[in-house]
Amino acid sequence: MIRVAINGYGTIGKRVADAVTCQPDMEIVGVSKTKPSAEAYVAASRGFPLYIADITKRDVFEKAGIAVAGSVEEMLAECDIVIDATPGGMGARNRALYEKAGVKAIFQGGEDHEVAGISFSSSCNYTEALGKDAVRVVSCNTTGLCRIIKLVDDEYGVRKVRATMIRRGGDPGDIKRGPIDAIVLNPVTIPSHHGPDVKSVLPEINIVTTAVIVPTTMMHMHVVQMDLKKPGDRDRIIELITAHPRIGLVRPATGITSTAELKEFMNDLGRPRSDLWENGVFEGSLSVDGDDLCLFQAIHQEADVVVETIDCIRAMMGTISDPRESIALTNYSLGFTPIG
Amino acid sequence: MIRVAINGYGTIGKRVADAVTCQPDMEIVGVSKTKPSAEAYVAASRGFPLYIADITKRDVFEKAGIAVAGSVEEMLAECDIVIDATPGGMGARNRALYEKAGVKAIFQGGEDHEVAGISFSSSCNYTEALGKDAVRVVSCNTTGLCRIIKLVDDEYGVRKVRATMIRRGGDPGDIKRGPIDAIVLNPVTIPSHHGPDVKSVLPEINIVTTAVIVPTTMMHMHVVQMDLKKPGDRDRIIELITAHPRIGLVRPATGITSTAELKEFMNDLGRPRSDLWENGVFEGSLSVDGDDLCLFQAIHQEADVVVETIDCIRAMMGTISDPRESIALTNYSLGFTPIG
Repeated sequence: MIRVAINGYGTIGKRVADAVTCQPDMEIVGVSKTKPSAEAYVAASRGFPLYIADITKRDVFEKAGIAVAGSVEEMLAECDIVIDATPGGMGARNRALYEKAGVKAIFQGGEDHEVAGISFSSSCNYTEALGKDAVRVVSCNTTGLCRIIKLVDDEYGVRKVRATMIRRGGDPGDIKRGPIDAIVLNPVTIPSHHGPDVKSVLPEINIVTTAVIVPTTMMHMHVVQMDLKKPGDRDRIIELITAHPRIGLVRPATGITSTAELKEFMNDLGRPRSDLWENGVFEGSLSVDGDDLCLFQAIHQEADVVVETIDCIRAMMGTISDPRESIALTNYSLGFTPIG
Repeated sequence: MIRVAINGYGTIGKRVADAVTCQPDMEIVGVSKTKPSAEAYVAASRGFPLYIADITKRDVFEKAGIAVAGSVEEMLAECDIVIDATPGGMGARNRALYEKAGVKAIFQGGEDHEVAGISFSSSCNYTEALGKDAVRVVSCNTTGLCRIIKLVDDEYGVRKVRATMIRRGGDPGDIKRGPIDAIVLNPVTIPSHHGPDVKSVLPEINIVTTAVIVPTTMMHMHVVQMDLKKPGDRDRIIELITAHPRIGLVRPATGITSTAELKEFMNDLGRPRSDLWENGVFEGSLSVDGDDLCLFQAIHQEADVVVETIDCIRAMMGTISDPRESIALTNYSLGFTPIG
């Protein structure tokens, strides 16, 4: 069994912890929080040993009725690999801690590529992570872009990608972020960071991205346009998407035309926390005009990197060397059923 | 003096009425409402004679303390030209009424092109409207697209346009529309209606558009990408925009990166109702990579067609045949100062 620790039990950390628990080949040895919170109670209710960053705060947790298993350093001593799911930028500061403990570490997309020197996407470059000590799983948006670009590039070759990310303002439980009423350019300059970030996984891809933030908590939406190296075929692309383990098709028959309805659909399908792990490509949007492909895809900011992180654990531990095998096992263990 | 009637004193109608009042060559003979409302009181406070669609409702208005000047048919008898600013689809039903009254009519972009057979944008095809009896002023988004595409096409030639419209959910005072929390595909299929609508003004342009609706009331945002027929020059494009009477530059020095701040800036500039009449092109976003141009532009759904409508009146009445002259007069009369 691969022993996994989660440093930072928040939006991503709590999902990765649950996903690890579902896998036959790994187990959670502990999770960490910096202060008592609803999520700390959730960790306790799941039976995850709770470790804390600052052990002098042990009494603050214990007064709140939350048992503390020890310090983060003690948690690291129990694990083979740690998932750093702390806020963006904290991962780089934690790196020395992981090296000192001699454990492998997975960083999130909020960190720079340099934090690990390798940026990961299961469907794109799984084998590059084999046996590595430090790997960065790219952000939710980059993950969603890499999946669809790789699929199309493998079939037709991609000459240029232009994508706009319409980003959610905050996560559903995050009451401190905005905007309440604006469309915020993110950033005002072109390109956004997503294009270069895609190149950290797929260096050969010519891509320009733009991004805005809007007042919603429910998923991001991408408008993806690709110039292909040869004419595309809509039916063939639909066939490829249908066969892809991490890209789902939102079928016109569902009547779904928004992120809100798509999330409701995930709830109805029984997905934990209404999570959409795959790209939600709107079949009705899929347009091919010669060598020009365009589509909408919904990307669930809380969910899509979770399954990638599970695969990344196996690659780094070297227990499964074929990406298809890990992806299939992750999906199967989560009870993943196609959305369309 | 050109005698102007406004049928439908709502978001657009009330703005056109105010703009007409500012012009030296036209006057308002009346405006219409279907029921008593805050806007009916505004019309009274402006001194605009108020006409009503259903004259049997005269007592409902009078009980509310609003004087009724007569029926819409009576209003039409007083004017040379009527601005149909009724809700989308109503214009087509009103057309027979205008023809019967023998008055010229301007329809809004919520109607189909066929309502008038000519779709209008001041900077693009003013002269086509000269002397016409019925003209449609295209919608706010189409107006914004036409302006920037024409400018670039005239200088470099445009091989293809790809644009995404991130649309506001409703107008600021509209409490009945959504979404509260979603990104709605509008529509789920590609292209959106904006591309074909641009072609109703600029038939030679090769354009594909996509659109989503988001939870904000403050303006639309466009991501516009153009493949040029020859390499572009960023400085030259900035120079052209600066010289354009209906395209403004949002300068980086303002620090503005969102629709919300841009609207606040319009308030601070003393613009009536915080109206942005021109395209708000974000200078910081303007990217030229060889023959590939990309930019963000804010489009104020309540405002940009107002100035076009004023020009359209002059074209149809045949009083000014040079578009530059009408545009300059409209801008000057409104006290239009550049935003950047």
